[in-house]
Amino acid sequence: MTLNHTHDPATRSWLASANAAGTDFPIQNLPFGIFKPKATPALDWRAGIAIGSDVLDLPALAATGLLQGLALSTAQAGAADALNPLMAIGPAAWQALRHAVFALLKADASAAVQTQVSACLHGQADVEMRLPARVGDYTDFYTSIHHATHIGKLFRPDNPLMPNYTWVPIGYHGRSSSLQVSGHGLRRPNGQTMPPGATSPTFGPCKRLDWEVELGVFVGTGNALGEPIALGQAEDHVFGICLLNDWSARDIQAWEYQPLGPFLAKNFSTTLSPWVVTMEALAPYRVAMERPDNKWDDLPYLASDANRQQGALDIQLDIGIASEAMRQQGQATHVLCTTSYRHAYWTLAQMVTHHTVNGCNLQPGDLLGTGTLSGPESTQAGALIELTQGGKLPVAMPDGSQRTFLLDGDEVTMRGWCQRDGAARIGFGDCRATVLPAMSI
Amino acid sequence: MTLNHTHDPATRSWLASANAAGTDFPIQNLPFGIFKPKATPALDWRAGIAIGSDVLDLPALAATGLLQGLALSTAQAGAADALNPLMAIGPAAWQALRHAVFALLKADASAAVQTQVSACLHGQADVEMRLPARVGDYTDFYTSIHHATHIGKLFRPDNPLMPNYTWVPIGYHGRSSSLQVSGHGLRRPNGQTMPPGATSPTFGPCKRLDWEVELGVFVGTGNALGEPIALGQAEDHVFGICLLNDWSARDIQAWEYQPLGPFLAKNFSTTLSPWVVTMEALAPYRVAMERPDNKWDDLPYLASDANRQQGALDIQLDIGIASEAMRQQGQATHVLCTTSYRHAYWTLAQMVTHHTVNGCNLQPGDLLGTGTLSGPESTQAGALIELTQGGKLPVAMPDGSQRTFLLDGDEVTMRGWCQRDGAARIGFGDCRATVLPAMSI
Repeated sequence: MTLNHTHDPATRSWLASANAAGTDFPIQNLPFGIFKPKATPALDWRAGIAIGSDVLDLPALAATGLLQGLALSTAQAGAADALNPLMAIGPAAWQALRHAVFALLKADASAAVQTQVSACLHGQADVEMRLPARVGDYTDFYTSIHHATHIGKLFRPDNPLMPNYTWVPIGYHGRSSSLQVSGHGLRRPNGQTMPPGATSPTFGPCKRLDWEVELGVFVGTGNALGEPIALGQAEDHVFGICLLNDWSARDIQAWEYQPLGPFLAKNFSTTLSPWVVTMEALAPYRVAMERPDNKWDDLPYLASDANRQQGALDIQLDIGIASEAMRQQGQATHVLCTTSYRHAYWTLAQMVTHHTVNGCNLQPGDLLGTGTLSGPESTQAGALIELTQGGKLPVAMPDGSQRTFLLDGDEVTMRGWCQRDGAARIGFGDCRATVLPAMSI
Repeated sequence: MTLNHTHDPATRSWLASANAAGTDFPIQNLPFGIFKPKATPALDWRAGIAIGSDVLDLPALAATGLLQGLALSTAQAGAADALNPLMAIGPAAWQALRHAVFALLKADASAAVQTQVSACLHGQADVEMRLPARVGDYTDFYTSIHHATHIGKLFRPDNPLMPNYTWVPIGYHGRSSSLQVSGHGLRRPNGQTMPPGATSPTFGPCKRLDWEVELGVFVGTGNALGEPIALGQAEDHVFGICLLNDWSARDIQAWEYQPLGPFLAKNFSTTLSPWVVTMEALAPYRVAMERPDNKWDDLPYLASDANRQQGALDIQLDIGIASEAMRQQGQATHVLCTTSYRHAYWTLAQMVTHHTVNGCNLQPGDLLGTGTLSGPESTQAGALIELTQGGKLPVAMPDGSQRTFLLDGDEVTMRGWCQRDGAARIGFGDCRATVLPAMSI
């Protein structure tokens, strides 16, 4: 995808909050989400676009007469409680609507347009958000070789990186029903664990509750069963990206995961940020793939020059904790990891193509997790189990406490953004949840 | 669940085909499915009950005035293209409708009733079937210790049965989008494999295409996120059971499955039989659990006397092949495996309770696979990889050919039934698909 006028960092909006320094949602972003105004119970869930500190109501905008043609019909598809219908229309439609909204929000829009569009805005503080899509299937990949190596050392010291890793974009199916949108309470799971040295397992609250810093990739248009998506077309099937925290119960995982993979260690909750940033908005942040092993002989179905030269994305990410004590003292989240999607061994296009190469069908609204996005440096470890080397090296918190794994009351916030010279900074909004005590058993 | 009058093997129907020897669908069965008459394009997908060689149209029956109260509202919930609304109502509703239909189909029903009900019948040959439910999440378990041991020996000769197996009802998430109803063509998948002795993988058609004989358990009423289902209530959340063939590409599986489990080796297709046999209809076939290791110290959340004494089900199963040559010569399916669900190490109730013990939420229409239901004998091996000891011992076919794994053109048929003295024989109908050549690459 090439750059176009919607990426011009000099373009400003007539909406002041869209021009504020550090906003996640300048006019160059325009991510999609599903919202409902808190104060208007009669208004049902609907699609909106984040702009500055507001949300633009797409069905309301469609009713103004300001949109035409494909942009209009795409906005009308936003009159639903999930983005699936809008995602199903395809990239030309998403682009037409994004460009039309861009024009309406630009500083040079007429006073009449500004008045009409203003009537379609709600403050983000005044709306509830829900999951952007009804996710049919959620697949989680494992695209960071740094994460795979670090966690492999902990689970299998003698065999950290499997021989298939540099050939196969490893993935597995996750749980759709327990996907939750940012802002919820996260109940600590109960489960079976095998304590070191024990001969029989015990049952109780997870003692090694962890996060995983990931991105969530939403499928737009799907493919028919039996018809693979070629690498060159893969990104045309992607609607956009959100933040994803793949909560993990490490003690449950270690005991249950062989031979069929993680199950109860992961499926109690997965948190998504509410805004989906489109592939078009991310175009300025394309970068070449990085591979620490410098191995480039992927099988032909996974290889192209375009993918290697610009298939990666420099989406910067961080995650941290605000404990209950810290929040009471008004302290900010203490960031424990800063990383980027650019370090992934496999690109988003390779995930889509590999997923479908056997004929498996993707559907609009399906979700692909990238896997934990650890980078090469120790401060770029995307999970506590890596950061603390399996719980052996606690990290210090500003409230004087220490953490190996999460404690009840910890509020975990993940953020994502893109920034470089010559492009507008765009962000993803927050992905947040607070750890609640386990149910009594 | 105790036996009641709907299980009396002496009860006959006024519908002759329901009394035919060997029918899968006598009046004691009454399984649910979703159908559409082939010759009446105006009639949309709707719920029906199989009786003899016919299907009873539930929305049509609801309109006759022959149903009242809970039975009526439950039949009305069948006016949908999936059973999810009917599944969501709960066991009292399913029982009320089943008992009302039983009374209407009994031999002593009045001539007027017989006339009205007859007008709601379609021949099974005259309808199309589709998947019984819209499956939100599909989970596959691994409940046969015989299968786990046999396949474990092939994949990990030094470590066949993992130490967690006898403590944890092992499961993992499967693919919902590629579930297909009986009667389809099965495209042989392409994929990566690592040939023995090779140093880099190759890409091409699967050479070790296999089946897995399983049952599919449909969730009826779900649970809220964070609220586990106790063992004593688990079966109240189950709507019923169908046949499930978990197609498996063994060469792809061997190369991709570590460390996160099977992915492309399984998600290209899973076949379900169209009729869901209710838990009530299965009540006469309850049996005590069998465990070859005689180990009964399950953790308390997975243990109860009732579960041990009558938590297993004697559902008999077989599977076989009719090659293209055999079909041309009018030869019947050559059965290669006969087994029973009674040999499972973990019961259906234990699957439900374990799945939710961490707070994971099940939803109406979710599907739980039992895993391959191999029994203790070598003829009870529920997959070709077991039956042929990893492809080393070919089996002879009636057309003179041999099989280790499936060939293009093979029609695979799986059947299931329950039979014992003092109870009516009930069946599941067929679960069938025909192997098609791989897409050219």
